[in-house]
Amino acid sequence: MSQKTRPAPPLETTHWFNTAAPPTLDGLRGRVVVIEAFQMLCPGCVSHGLPQAKRVFETFNGTDVAVLGLHCVFEHHEAQSPVSLEAFLHEYRIAFPVAVDAPDASAPLPRTMAAYGMQGTPTLVLIDRAGHRRAQHFGHVTDLKLGAEIMALIREGPAETR
Amino acid sequence: MSQKTRPAPPLETTHWFNTAAPPTLDGLRGRVVVIEAFQMLCPGCVSHGLPQAKRVFETFNGTDVAVLGLHCVFEHHEAQSPVSLEAFLHEYRIAFPVAVDAPDASAPLPRTMAAYGMQGTPTLVLIDRAGHRRAQHFGHVTDLKLGAEIMALIREGPAETR
Amino acid sequence: MSQKTRPAPPLETTHWFNTAAPPTLDGLRGRVVVIEAFQMLCPGCVSHGLPQAKRVFETFNGTDVAVLGLHCVFEHHEAQSPVSLEAFLHEYRIAFPVAVDAPDASAPLPRTMAAYGMQGTPTLVLIDRAGHRRAQHFGHVTDLKLGAEIMALIREGPAETR
Amino acid sequence: MSQKTRPAPPLETTHWFNTAAPPTLDGLRGRVVVIEAFQMLCPGCVSHGLPQAKRVFETFNGTDVAVLGLHCVFEHHEAQSPVSLEAFLHEYRIAFPVAVDAPDASAPLPRTMAAYGMQGTPTLVLIDRAGHRRAQHFGHVTDLKLGAEIMALIREGPAETR
Repeated sequence: MSQKTRPAPPLETTHWFNTAAPPTLDGLRGRVVVIEAFQMLCPGCVSHGLPQAKRVFETFNGTDVAVLGLHCVFEHHEAQSPVSLEAFLHEYRIAFPVAVDAPDASAPLPRTMAAYGMQGTPTLVLIDRAGHRRAQHFGHVTDLKLGAEIMALIREGPAETR
Repeated sequence: MSQKTRPAPPLETTHWFNTAAPPTLDGLRGRVVVIEAFQMLCPGCVSHGLPQAKRVFETFNGTDVAVLGLHCVFEHHEAQSPVSLEAFLHEYRIAFPVAVDAPDASAPLPRTMAAYGMQGTPTLVLIDRAGHRRAQHFGHVTDLKLGAEIMALIREGPAETR
Repeated sequence: MSQKTRPAPPLETTHWFNTAAPPTLDGLRGRVVVIEAFQMLCPGCVSHGLPQAKRVFETFNGTDVAVLGLHCVFEHHEAQSPVSLEAFLHEYRIAFPVAVDAPDASAPLPRTMAAYGMQGTPTLVLIDRAGHRRAQHFGHVTDLKLGAEIMALIREGPAETR
Repeated sequence: MSQKTRPAPPLETTHWFNTAAPPTLDGLRGRVVVIEAFQMLCPGCVSHGLPQAKRVFETFNGTDVAVLGLHCVFEHHEAQSPVSLEAFLHEYRIAFPVAVDAPDASAPLPRTMAAYGMQGTPTLVLIDRAGHRRAQHFGHVTDLKLGAEIMALIREGPAETR
């Protein structure tokens, strides 16, 4: 794990796809949360980050692990609009909930991306059952390491608070 | 080769990227032309078709072989606009000329795609030095077979007319 | 996990490579043990099983997880002799300890392979800190699932007995 | 092509597999010959060289292109005996003819490997229809380039002599 334990900032979003009831981190308390922060025109997100997030979604039980996508547009804003994102999610068969990170009119980075101090995309964030951020990986993390990190958080148990 | 020899229909386009002087098939007479027909949100195009076209562009001499991309939007029109395409080409480091296939107000397929009878994307078209269409591959074609097909057309020689 | 908890049969071996002090399962008590059962001329072992075992060896701390190779020759005995295996391990840069499963003069399968009821190679066996067999995967298991399974055993803790 | 045109040295061999009638380069005159020089315990041969040779064998017509394997043992001689090679060819489903390069009692390299001046394995040699060596690639060559090189030799035509 690459980060000290601290509460995860709330998600600030403008749109949600693949969900009738947009989730919040507070509402997901009790589950491990895996956030895949991406941009639809980021080659590393398309070839590695998102396929890995799909594997996490397919491997772990939804009662233990929630997977969320977060579309953090910090470049090519007009090219990566919610309309384009919706078609992208359809074509790439992404089934887990995906949010659009809320733009900040006064800054280049969208709000959640800035609050998390992300350096770019893809970034994978792990949040424990108590709502604390426990890891944040910019770029590539292996499936073996990620599987181990997720299970370590699962095994802390639902009753544990930090 | 999967098609009988016949003249290749002209390209009907609305935009060009990566070129100051939009090419025409007539102007490319004397060279073998490889056309990669794709959509920017088509997963098979992104993972296989376009990387293969890049390898063709990097492997063969430009005086023998011209590589062109053709953005044939037949679905998700609003999501795959020229603005989005431009960002896509930048992010995916596509350096060869790419055209937008001209939409047809009265039909679902764009004009060049329809004229070539393409069944979908990715489709790879091979045109010989005399301007005749010699092969059209829908879906996957191996690099070994494609390298052989291109060389067969190169070796027909510039003086040959059909 | 695909198997009920039960003590792992002891390893019956004739040779060890990559170790000055041949390990025993009893001696490894307190650690999670990952056994990669393979044959050097088994294509699936070479392309998937052994590279995965190398990743496990490189990813987890040796104080928590011991990785062992077990050469279970049940076909092509003359072709897969210890002399050939030694060269194989050198060429494939396999650094963890590897044993030769003891042949059984009266049966086609070597002794440890038979005791574990393995169906073929590659087979990956997981043994917990208490020396109990907890999983046995014949064929492919994903890195994500394996990483999670190993961590689940690590987190049971050294003091736990079963 | 990386080499000047010159006649290919004859193959000096001790064993042949996958053929009832061991071929000679003279007997293959009129066809393009692709020789994959390998060692069965060479990881790059197993993961890249031999699979590529299989693709060549499956892609081109046998009347135009002959594919031969050549087992050039220059290290681990005892480990890579003909007995081990035979099991290897079976397990890896290699169907084209494979020869064992003749050892030279007075030198470390086997005879054909030395005559061709090979630097190691895998090495891929291309011989034209007239029996002249036209290319020799040590290490990786892309499928696209190889497909083009083979077709260039095919198109020289059976009547052409050099």
